[in-house]
Amino acid sequence: MTNQVHPPMTAVREVVARALAEDMGPLGDLTAALLPAGVDAVADIVPREAGVLAGRLCATEAFAQVDASVALRWSADDGDPVSVGTPVARVQGPLASILTAERAALNFLGHLSGVATLTRRYVELTTGRWAAIRDTRKTTPGLRALEKAAVRAGGGVNHRGSLSDGILLKDNHLAGTPIDEAVGRARALWPGRPVQVECDTAAEGDEALAARVDLVLLDNMTPEQVAACVKAVDGACLVEVSGGVTLETVEAYAAAGADLIAVGAITHSGPVLDIGLDIGSN
Amino acid sequence: MTNQVHPPMTAVREVVARALAEDMGPLGDLTAALLPAGVDAVADIVPREAGVLAGRLCATEAFAQVDASVALRWSADDGDPVSVGTPVARVQGPLASILTAERAALNFLGHLSGVATLTRRYVELTTGRWAAIRDTRKTTPGLRALEKAAVRAGGGVNHRGSLSDGILLKDNHLAGTPIDEAVGRARALWPGRPVQVECDTAAEGDEALAARVDLVLLDNMTPEQVAACVKAVDGACLVEVSGGVTLETVEAYAAAGADLIAVGAITHSGPVLDIGLDIGSN
Amino acid sequence: MTNQVHPPMTAVREVVARALAEDMGPLGDLTAALLPAGVDAVADIVPREAGVLAGRLCATEAFAQVDASVALRWSADDGDPVSVGTPVARVQGPLASILTAERAALNFLGHLSGVATLTRRYVELTTGRWAAIRDTRKTTPGLRALEKAAVRAGGGVNHRGSLSDGILLKDNHLAGTPIDEAVGRARALWPGRPVQVECDTAAEGDEALAARVDLVLLDNMTPEQVAACVKAVDGACLVEVSGGVTLETVEAYAAAGADLIAVGAITHSGPVLDIGLDIGSN
Amino acid sequence: MTNQVHPPMTAVREVVARALAEDMGPLGDLTAALLPAGVDAVADIVPREAGVLAGRLCATEAFAQVDASVALRWSADDGDPVSVGTPVARVQGPLASILTAERAALNFLGHLSGVATLTRRYVELTTGRWAAIRDTRKTTPGLRALEKAAVRAGGGVNHRGSLSDGILLKDNHLAGTPIDEAVGRARALWPGRPVQVECDTAAEGDEALAARVDLVLLDNMTPEQVAACVKAVDGACLVEVSGGVTLETVEAYAAAGADLIAVGAITHSGPVLDIGLDIGSN
Amino acid sequence: MTNQVHPPMTAVREVVARALAEDMGPLGDLTAALLPAGVDAVADIVPREAGVLAGRLCATEAFAQVDASVALRWSADDGDPVSVGTPVARVQGPLASILTAERAALNFLGHLSGVATLTRRYVELTTGRWAAIRDTRKTTPGLRALEKAAVRAGGGVNHRGSLSDGILLKDNHLAGTPIDEAVGRARALWPGRPVQVECDTAAEGDEALAARVDLVLLDNMTPEQVAACVKAVDGACLVEVSGGVTLETVEAYAAAGADLIAVGAITHSGPVLDIGLDIGSN
Amino acid sequence: MTNQVHPPMTAVREVVARALAEDMGPLGDLTAALLPAGVDAVADIVPREAGVLAGRLCATEAFAQVDASVALRWSADDGDPVSVGTPVARVQGPLASILTAERAALNFLGHLSGVATLTRRYVELTTGRWAAIRDTRKTTPGLRALEKAAVRAGGGVNHRGSLSDGILLKDNHLAGTPIDEAVGRARALWPGRPVQVECDTAAEGDEALAARVDLVLLDNMTPEQVAACVKAVDGACLVEVSGGVTLETVEAYAAAGADLIAVGAITHSGPVLDIGLDIGSN
Repeated sequence: MTNQVHPPMTAVREVVARALAEDMGPLGDLTAALLPAGVDAVADIVPREAGVLAGRLCATEAFAQVDASVALRWSADDGDPVSVGTPVARVQGPLASILTAERAALNFLGHLSGVATLTRRYVELTTGRWAAIRDTRKTTPGLRALEKAAVRAGGGVNHRGSLSDGILLKDNHLAGTPIDEAVGRARALWPGRPVQVECDTAAEGDEALAARVDLVLLDNMTPEQVAACVKAVDGACLVEVSGGVTLETVEAYAAAGADLIAVGAITHSGPVLDIGLDIGSN
Repeated sequence: MTNQVHPPMTAVREVVARALAEDMGPLGDLTAALLPAGVDAVADIVPREAGVLAGRLCATEAFAQVDASVALRWSADDGDPVSVGTPVARVQGPLASILTAERAALNFLGHLSGVATLTRRYVELTTGRWAAIRDTRKTTPGLRALEKAAVRAGGGVNHRGSLSDGILLKDNHLAGTPIDEAVGRARALWPGRPVQVECDTAAEGDEALAARVDLVLLDNMTPEQVAACVKAVDGACLVEVSGGVTLETVEAYAAAGADLIAVGAITHSGPVLDIGLDIGSN
Repeated sequence: MTNQVHPPMTAVREVVARALAEDMGPLGDLTAALLPAGVDAVADIVPREAGVLAGRLCATEAFAQVDASVALRWSADDGDPVSVGTPVARVQGPLASILTAERAALNFLGHLSGVATLTRRYVELTTGRWAAIRDTRKTTPGLRALEKAAVRAGGGVNHRGSLSDGILLKDNHLAGTPIDEAVGRARALWPGRPVQVECDTAAEGDEALAARVDLVLLDNMTPEQVAACVKAVDGACLVEVSGGVTLETVEAYAAAGADLIAVGAITHSGPVLDIGLDIGSN
Repeated sequence: MTNQVHPPMTAVREVVARALAEDMGPLGDLTAALLPAGVDAVADIVPREAGVLAGRLCATEAFAQVDASVALRWSADDGDPVSVGTPVARVQGPLASILTAERAALNFLGHLSGVATLTRRYVELTTGRWAAIRDTRKTTPGLRALEKAAVRAGGGVNHRGSLSDGILLKDNHLAGTPIDEAVGRARALWPGRPVQVECDTAAEGDEALAARVDLVLLDNMTPEQVAACVKAVDGACLVEVSGGVTLETVEAYAAAGADLIAVGAITHSGPVLDIGLDIGSN
Repeated sequence: MTNQVHPPMTAVREVVARALAEDMGPLGDLTAALLPAGVDAVADIVPREAGVLAGRLCATEAFAQVDASVALRWSADDGDPVSVGTPVARVQGPLASILTAERAALNFLGHLSGVATLTRRYVELTTGRWAAIRDTRKTTPGLRALEKAAVRAGGGVNHRGSLSDGILLKDNHLAGTPIDEAVGRARALWPGRPVQVECDTAAEGDEALAARVDLVLLDNMTPEQVAACVKAVDGACLVEVSGGVTLETVEAYAAAGADLIAVGAITHSGPVLDIGLDIGSN
Repeated sequence: MTNQVHPPMTAVREVVARALAEDMGPLGDLTAALLPAGVDAVADIVPREAGVLAGRLCATEAFAQVDASVALRWSADDGDPVSVGTPVARVQGPLASILTAERAALNFLGHLSGVATLTRRYVELTTGRWAAIRDTRKTTPGLRALEKAAVRAGGGVNHRGSLSDGILLKDNHLAGTPIDEAVGRARALWPGRPVQVECDTAAEGDEALAARVDLVLLDNMTPEQVAACVKAVDGACLVEVSGGVTLETVEAYAAAGADLIAVGAITHSGPVLDIGLDIGSN
């Protein structure tokens, strides 16, 4: 396991603090407040369905921010497959604190494992192909760092983290400007950064190729059209496919020879992975 | 149209600022920076699929925070049905600013309209029944205020906004304590607030009823079990159903006579509503 | 002792950080900077007057945020009575750090213990009565979570934590709308939440009762008028009294049979409890 | 009217945003949400008791942050005396927005006008004397900038804004070090800043005087002792009195010839000034 | 003029708010508070030395955040050369507000124009050469977005905005791993992103070239060594030079044929450009 | 070593969090993510040039915020002289974490040690003279607390931390008002605070002296003019010199007898001190 699947702690701390503030409200947990103080508990975090784990750091942080004396012991890491009923972590500490942090912790685990799980499904459908599954900037507002890490945990790779880490020229940016002129301007202003051009037709693809771009983003093409473009590009630059990619079509696009397949759905439309918390006896 | 479907501006401003900071990155929009200054544009925000609109305030705020000179004119309000290809808003201002804010604005619109649209589907399946569709605390971290407003836009109603606005006693809180004792403690400590008890069996439901709770939350029961409980309760308190509610089963639960049907999926597992931006000519 | 008297740590951390930033200023503690480094001290936190303690978590956090090596050992908990001269905590650590954090820590302790102490006085004046003393939303801006916890420490109970956890219809909301119509709308839009109506006259009280509200808030009535209303209500809903409640009148209102007595003064007009810090010898 | 009575806008914006976030909760104003949209109102902000106004900027900001279309027209400024029933401002805008912002705005006005009013009472008791009434660092956590501005509005003057704007040597800082040595160190490290020394006895006062401090802070002395010290100082430095100053004793301390009289109570123990909002007809 | 020289407004607002909070302190501007209210002024922002302007948005924002009624009219844009004594902007508004905001506004203008000016000096020394002057991640903490925009205003280009927008393998990352293996891993995990390798010797440069990196970063080489490497690379990838680049040596490195010359000094060691504010008569 | 050279931890935590957020970007450290997990390293922080250390707390905090398991052991304190090649700290922990935090930590150390080093140079040039070297409010936006601490570490002293801790009347504030009138107003409104007046001519100096100010700030005078003013003042108040002070002229100004010499350059124009990190073997 390398380091690449975890989000930066700097983001984790801030996002978790926000989620807890939101869930505590002005009075805190009215129900947990009814519990007697001094009662400890042991609990297991247990998947209710199979999938891929993501969000460990967030869950740990959620319990810790509610009560530093709550301890977690994980038996699975982000990126690991999980199965129904097999605990992924044991939680130990004051019962009231565990119950108060539970929902926030599970919301992170469920959402991010949902992203990782859907990503993994796409990845598995392209097994044996060259193509990598790549996310987009269509992420849930405020959760980009975490969702992009979950995509990595699922086996996918990341597109731009923000507007400031790559040039992607779309129709609206070109608006009549010849592609090579626009690419030239990008090379001059942002040397050393990849220049990508969105192409809706093979002709545009040729134009982009002639402009020596680093990547052509074939938008809304059929697998056949993609295959033709891949052939035309012939390794001169990366070919990414976007638009119309679903669990049904991804295999065909991968077979068409694309290097990268962009799937917005993995970050914006995946269902949560159902993960629960079972209180045991201490 | 009443005021109830919009989230508070205080939340909108903060969440949008965060989303933009996340999407701008340290350098801002590299691609838009290539555009000549002083070029204005008009654009339309256009649904690519039918659904229910939500997130208007967020989209407006996103454009405004990027560039105060961008103006939006909306032709639909949160809660309105939208159809493929019919614009919901016109955007006017500097082209570079519009393109820079586009993704953040659409991420909000797509996600929140997705919540509203899925909610509406559940609501429509219960038309003619007494039951209201209600959300849960299973929301996306950091977006609760917005998602709960989107649920209202979709025609649903809101469960607890946070742990501090209602008592909900679950198994783990009771842990052997008789329900009436726990309810009594809740009444004493939090008078004037609704006390809800989660019940997994009809027996627990009877016990809760005897303790004069405000609401019994029937968890993971079949529609038949629910119907029996509704009959037993006979209007003495509200009956809410949760667990196992899907688009396939919701009608049966509504037919069983529940007052409220809790659906976690509307906030945590709905796909985005595909909404795009089309640049026109000025 | 149950968990209910402490504010959530998520709020404590943030409020303390703000208070310290405010008190440090851009240079930090000029005077403590004059002290030689490496000098440790032991100090006692000592009430200068009798009252009820509140704010422990804030004081502990204030010392910790200034210097993690400062340790506190408390001999009293929030909600405990304290007496003149009997230390409630011992502080141990670098002298300069203790002196730097002293004022911020004491400002929290003094203010919140002041709230708890005044609350307790009202509570004691209603001993033997059914009525609970309840706070309002008239709290000090930025300190609501802490003040509401201090009210609980003093033996009082909490009204709404925010505008989002309960419906309270006042004159301005009704503005000519019949009470039952307004209540009906509230039931439809916010099912499961308590609906409270402010009533200035017995007639309005009757109207509210007919509308089956959860609570009538009798505003600016005499104890006699309250007694009449309590009789009319006859247990059908909760009766809360507000307006004109002072240390002089609270007993009469309690005697009148109200369930809840709202006292804005406990959060907005209580004097601090004088608590100091005495440096000892190490 | 000079500029000195208003707090910096930078502080106002932040504190108001926090107060509103706290009061909105995750759902916003449930009750105002019931009102029909598009209904405008006019309201007056009206004192229920006489006093001194403070907090105008905060109240204006609170309404504006809730809804930028709400407008306020003030007929009194911070520092002005206000009387029962005479409006200090007219508010105009959407009814729902006015009701939503009302409590937050009034909480600021009430608290800060309370500070200004109590300050003014102390100031008036020293009319004709040389002494100025001065606040302390015993302020409400998070509100220092606003409370210190309210003290100025009341006619008082400000002590240190934070630990970083002046040296104040107390017993605990001296701890056996001769005063002149400590003062010398302060002069060397923080040249150009005032050095103040707290003195509990006339002997200490003499020692401080010999060390050429800028101000002696006479702590817990009787008016007679103060008078003796003032005579001994004979204008060589400022004399400030602290400890035991109340509305009953302030005149005697002023008569004793002190330059400054420190009163912690004006910021930490003043009751709010009762100010309400009356909705009129548009 | 294109859009590329301005920092994102999202960053500007936040950084300016922080700077003002820092400079206002808890009481605000004591000196400006002495001025009579209602006095307006006109002022000019005037360079005291020649250079290149940067920071316009920050200065405008600083005045606006202090007082929205202060207006600025600029006669020069970021990136424009400025000369001694020729105003770059006219400021109009309340005198007290102008004086309060002055230092914060000038601190931004001076610092950022200093960055732009030093960048321009490096750029001018390489006129007629292919090489672009590029910044590094050695920026002033908290100001990266603004400093990188100032570099662009000076005619330079930007290296990585953050650790998340490009792979740069240094000795410490390689630590014995063959370059081609490390590059292969980078290509697999972060496809579509540029892979750069720092090389201290020509041999490492050859190895990197063989691994088909996008850019070799020649660290601490002489111009002669650089020239040799450029020849060896022969256009196969970009060549960047870093280490030991000064105003004295930059020309030689440019002459050696590098594509990019990294200069940490432009963001971390440039003197401010002296810019002042002259109050005129209204 | 006394406590006076360190900035408050409250500021350190916040500034470091901001710097790390800025440097992590939305994805975190792409390059470090390639490293295998579980590899520990030992590294030394080593000056590449001689100077004065500052910023220890920030560097420690930067590593800790990235990964709490990274430990630092310092062999030099803020204010200590450092020499080329002699390590000032040893860092131990996961290799990936050390490399990720490296640049942020070094940016603080380099910048702040640069401030301390330049300050020390000025201080040493005035050895044997009475004058202290003092900073100004011309600091880098967002870093004032840290830079002012670095000035102290370098042996300098601090001017105002913010606009709220002292009165400094400049031409623009006076604008025709006689100095004694302005000073009188300042004494009345802000008693106990130092009143400083900027004087451009000896005549203004005399006027200020007559008004009994605490400090005259001689702006843009020659050493000879300063000497004459010092003689005229004759110890009646402090004399500070500003404007035109450089490493070349500071000695002459000190010889002229000034108490304080203000040097804006130490905070706004000093080059960084080059400090690096060398990874060793564990």
